[in-house]
Amino acid sequence: MKKLKEKIVKEGKTIGETILKVDSFLNHQVDVELMQEIGKKFAEHFRDKNITKVVTIESSGIAPATMVAMQLKVPLLFLKKQKPNTLQDEFLQTTVYSFTKERFYELMVAKKYVEKEDRVLIIDDFLANGEAGLGAIRLMEEAGAKVVGVGIVIEKAFQPGRSKIEEKGYEVYSLARIKRIEEGHIEFVEEN
Amino acid sequence: MKKLKEKIVKEGKTIGETILKVDSFLNHQVDVELMQEIGKKFAEHFRDKNITKVVTIESSGIAPATMVAMQLKVPLLFLKKQKPNTLQDEFLQTTVYSFTKERFYELMVAKKYVEKEDRVLIIDDFLANGEAGLGAIRLMEEAGAKVVGVGIVIEKAFQPGRSKIEEKGYEVYSLARIKRIEEGHIEFVEEN
Repeated sequence: MKKLKEKIVKEGKTIGETILKVDSFLNHQVDVELMQEIGKKFAEHFRDKNITKVVTIESSGIAPATMVAMQLKVPLLFLKKQKPNTLQDEFLQTTVYSFTKERFYELMVAKKYVEKEDRVLIIDDFLANGEAGLGAIRLMEEAGAKVVGVGIVIEKAFQPGRSKIEEKGYEVYSLARIKRIEEGHIEFVEEN
Repeated sequence: MKKLKEKIVKEGKTIGETILKVDSFLNHQVDVELMQEIGKKFAEHFRDKNITKVVTIESSGIAPATMVAMQLKVPLLFLKKQKPNTLQDEFLQTTVYSFTKERFYELMVAKKYVEKEDRVLIIDDFLANGEAGLGAIRLMEEAGAKVVGVGIVIEKAFQPGRSKIEEKGYEVYSLARIKRIEEGHIEFVEEN
């Protein structure tokens, strides 16, 4: 997605060869107009998959995923990293390792919001090592729903997330794929 | 807002006389169509305030706030409860007490995303004791921006949040004001 890549080049801050910060339009401040276009792009790509629910992970996935759900006219469900204070419902839970934060965290979903008939599109802001995405897939599988694809805003293609998710048989569709970060320069994977 | 109140009555789960769970459309699963209407309602109310930024608190505020920002065609900024892993930027920070979770947490914003010229609309999913809202106001004031209003999806009008924020001179506009929860029955404040 050309406009997204231009925004990454213009406003992204790199740290070393692996970290890209996009706090100005995605992870802290949010460019809502760009999110709308991102939503349209994902919806266009997954339009014929009969998606019944968009699933994301709090917090940075919520804004883009809201726009996708709006386009597809389906509910959004955001997976939680903290136990709710009132545990009335049955929750499914899985442990995820964050390479970025170097710690484990729990990913949770209330069972009643995922049905066996659901066809789920998982949306996330970043794909790097794929641990969060795989955690979301595990939860959906455990609930008996079908994951029909994973949509990623920014993929670090030099890390193994995509291949780990594809190996499990799921499609990964990313709007910007970063091939390499070198001396502050961001190189994208060429698209056909 | 009639449709929101109907949704609360239909899907909200009460626990005792103070807790209302709206996980089916706001805090876990999100009814994006309803969020769009909520966004329009807030935008309509605050349209003439020359708002330059919508500010919310992660995570449950993000979906409705995204819709408000979309309507007003301004950026969204979500305040963080966790320190980012890369602390390059200057952050402003304030401590907030959560009565619901019975613990303190930090609320943070990168200084560079709030400018002195900013006219900020704060949007949040719930208003109860007002601690989160007041924390957001403190951060904006500290950054030198002007808070022009606080928009709340669901207000527990039987708790002191509104009066604490109004005492500081800020307008609070809520789409559903709950007067009382009694034996599972939700009573709203009557509107003129």
